[in-house]
Amino acid sequence: MRQIPYDLIRKKQSGQAHTAEEVQYLVGAFTRGELPDYQMSAWLMAVYFQGMIPEERNELVNTMINSGRRLDFSHLDGYVADKHSTGGVGDKVSLVLGPLLAACGLYVPMLSGRGLGHTGGTLDKLEAIPGFRISLDLDAFQRQVAEVGICMMGQTSDICPADKKLYALRDVTSTVSSVPLIAGSIMSKKIAEGIRGLILDVKWGSGAFMTRLEDARALAKVLIETGQAFGVHTRARVTDMNQPLGATAGIWCEVQESVRALEGGGPADLLELTRVLASDILKMAGHSDPGKEIQGALDSGRAREKLDQMVAAQGGDVKALANARLHQPSVTIPLLAPADGYLATVDTYRAGMSLIEAKAGRTQQSDGIDPTAGFALDIKIGDRVSAGSDIGRYFGSNQSFVEAAAKDLMAALSWSGESVEALPLIVDFQ
Amino acid sequence: MRQIPYDLIRKKQSGQAHTAEEVQYLVGAFTRGELPDYQMSAWLMAVYFQGMIPEERNELVNTMINSGRRLDFSHLDGYVADKHSTGGVGDKVSLVLGPLLAACGLYVPMLSGRGLGHTGGTLDKLEAIPGFRISLDLDAFQRQVAEVGICMMGQTSDICPADKKLYALRDVTSTVSSVPLIAGSIMSKKIAEGIRGLILDVKWGSGAFMTRLEDARALAKVLIETGQAFGVHTRARVTDMNQPLGATAGIWCEVQESVRALEGGGPADLLELTRVLASDILKMAGHSDPGKEIQGALDSGRAREKLDQMVAAQGGDVKALANARLHQPSVTIPLLAPADGYLATVDTYRAGMSLIEAKAGRTQQSDGIDPTAGFALDIKIGDRVSAGSDIGRYFGSNQSFVEAAAKDLMAALSWSGESVEALPLIVDFQ
Repeated sequence: MRQIPYDLIRKKQSGQAHTAEEVQYLVGAFTRGELPDYQMSAWLMAVYFQGMIPEERNELVNTMINSGRRLDFSHLDGYVADKHSTGGVGDKVSLVLGPLLAACGLYVPMLSGRGLGHTGGTLDKLEAIPGFRISLDLDAFQRQVAEVGICMMGQTSDICPADKKLYALRDVTSTVSSVPLIAGSIMSKKIAEGIRGLILDVKWGSGAFMTRLEDARALAKVLIETGQAFGVHTRARVTDMNQPLGATAGIWCEVQESVRALEGGGPADLLELTRVLASDILKMAGHSDPGKEIQGALDSGRAREKLDQMVAAQGGDVKALANARLHQPSVTIPLLAPADGYLATVDTYRAGMSLIEAKAGRTQQSDGIDPTAGFALDIKIGDRVSAGSDIGRYFGSNQSFVEAAAKDLMAALSWSGESVEALPLIVDFQ
Repeated sequence: MRQIPYDLIRKKQSGQAHTAEEVQYLVGAFTRGELPDYQMSAWLMAVYFQGMIPEERNELVNTMINSGRRLDFSHLDGYVADKHSTGGVGDKVSLVLGPLLAACGLYVPMLSGRGLGHTGGTLDKLEAIPGFRISLDLDAFQRQVAEVGICMMGQTSDICPADKKLYALRDVTSTVSSVPLIAGSIMSKKIAEGIRGLILDVKWGSGAFMTRLEDARALAKVLIETGQAFGVHTRARVTDMNQPLGATAGIWCEVQESVRALEGGGPADLLELTRVLASDILKMAGHSDPGKEIQGALDSGRAREKLDQMVAAQGGDVKALANARLHQPSVTIPLLAPADGYLATVDTYRAGMSLIEAKAGRTQQSDGIDPTAGFALDIKIGDRVSAGSDIGRYFGSNQSFVEAAAKDLMAALSWSGESVEALPLIVDFQ
């Protein structure tokens, strides 16, 4: 069948569903450079408005997986699993959860991304560890998963190249925020990892991609359906991103907070979310007492050790990892409560964007990043403060950048004279 | 102000209206090649779904006019007017109406287009006249309008170059059929002609761009509003395109039918529509008895003479124009009624597409065209036929092309055993 791009754009524009063949043609021809960007972006915008039925969505995932390699860990005698978060501010769960799961006997082949816009990315944090390699070839990746139990690195050009090209176009045409396209992008990469189980952390709130709870729930549902359609056991937690997660947001500060969490310390919300997600995936793996197992892995130091093993396997300096003063900020600005009262809301998007000003975030993939930069916020929504009390710090390498970022973070906080109820961290389980 | 294309796409995508400055930026940057096609096509698709408010639409028109020259005929002592049809099958009204209006003392600067898809174009017909130049420069165009009273030619690169570039992108991204974009494209070119009055022939039906009557009415309303906003007195007729107009459709056959109409002959529907549109525009020009004036121009031969004057002024062979046997088809196939009954419906889109098979139409602007090809259909909806009776002819230069086209035309006709009511030719006046 000769596929005429114009007719396919028109078909989607009129709200009809594509056949499997049509989806394959569109994604395939675009990836091979045979379908021009301007037709693909018109089609993407039509998808934004008209959506996709499950069959189309699944074919999109299938085509993107088939554009590259799909890993196979079926020879391993354990449960192969991964976790994905839709992203937020201060979200360092992967760095804690990955080694913890591996310490509990799971195999974790984790392909991660960089931070972009207001959200942080695991790769930026890993890269701050001296010597750590985030670009292994897929054979080395697979070997390390088998030997160490975990490997965390960036997406390679062998995994879903179609998604990579499509995402770059969506990024500049305002067609990222389409549920079927999001689902296609996330799930194709995760399914290509060759995992058996996947736990999703779908964030909702002012710092999340989905600012409305019902949208996060709807996305979670679609992601789960997609995973199940490809034989990957998939569950999802909808969790709060109306304030930064944990105590810090930035680069090296988040690495250090993760290390502390693996040592059993660290902020309560980070620990709670990590334990819940770990417990979910261990249950999916058929483990009978995940809570006890998790506690054991943390208390015994095995989880912490697993991080060192992974870092060492990927060429990283294990001693440097433990050194909180490695990427020491030269500038630190205290954050002070402006008045007596309660922290009412955090514009978490704005808090995340302040990290770009401080150079701990980026607006383009090619921007550099300052590993010393970030902030520590010692209070959570509902906490009471008195005027002038110390509520945190903003730090980095450049006085004026950090000052501007600190100002922006403070402007992202709103205060109330009345007491404010704390928000539930974990909203939903699907 | 720095305009970020992404934000503008997103703004339209979310249903917001652009400022004048934003519209200017989008169209201007795109025309200058600073805004990539893939972002423009995403924006166009967002416009397709979200529409435009009148202020945006008018700014779009304004920006496209300002991308090129706007003609000025204010030094002429007569009414400067034009007519535009949204297109159909067998629509040769411009060829008749233009000379007729000029013979009634109006100035007619008419920029026309080629046929595309199932619809014919005036330029293709003019080009079939040996020697006729359809590409004059704008100064020669203006001079001829002043001297002869009429010039009909193609759009030059000086008139609305932004529209030209935008239309080419819309054509391949399925974003032609958006009312504000149609209005912008049609009206910018007509307003740039420097006319005072404009009569629109907005077609509805199976062979029209707008297949539903209410859509044609809505388009007419927007076109009128746009014209009025730019000080061009604009009225519209919504007319029938549920069957081909006149007796023939094709190239040279339509030229000949037009010549006959200017000599007072020709099919009733073509004459009626031409008279009504001519009367409308003469009334707009303040003429007191248009009916009498039109009859006089036809009866005296002045309308017919005006056509010759125009053809001669543009280098065309006036004798050849009168020669019905000039582009003589080598193949003619009779069309026969399949049974006793009444012509019930014509799939006029399909009838128009049959012309492409016969090579009297094109699917791409670059396709060549056979001036001998076309069809004559001697019956109208509601006419009674008996089995085997002659209802018309299909003709051209290539036996197998003409055979296929004739078959397709016959398949586009449906018949009824019961009597069928004729359709009103002219539905609406706005």
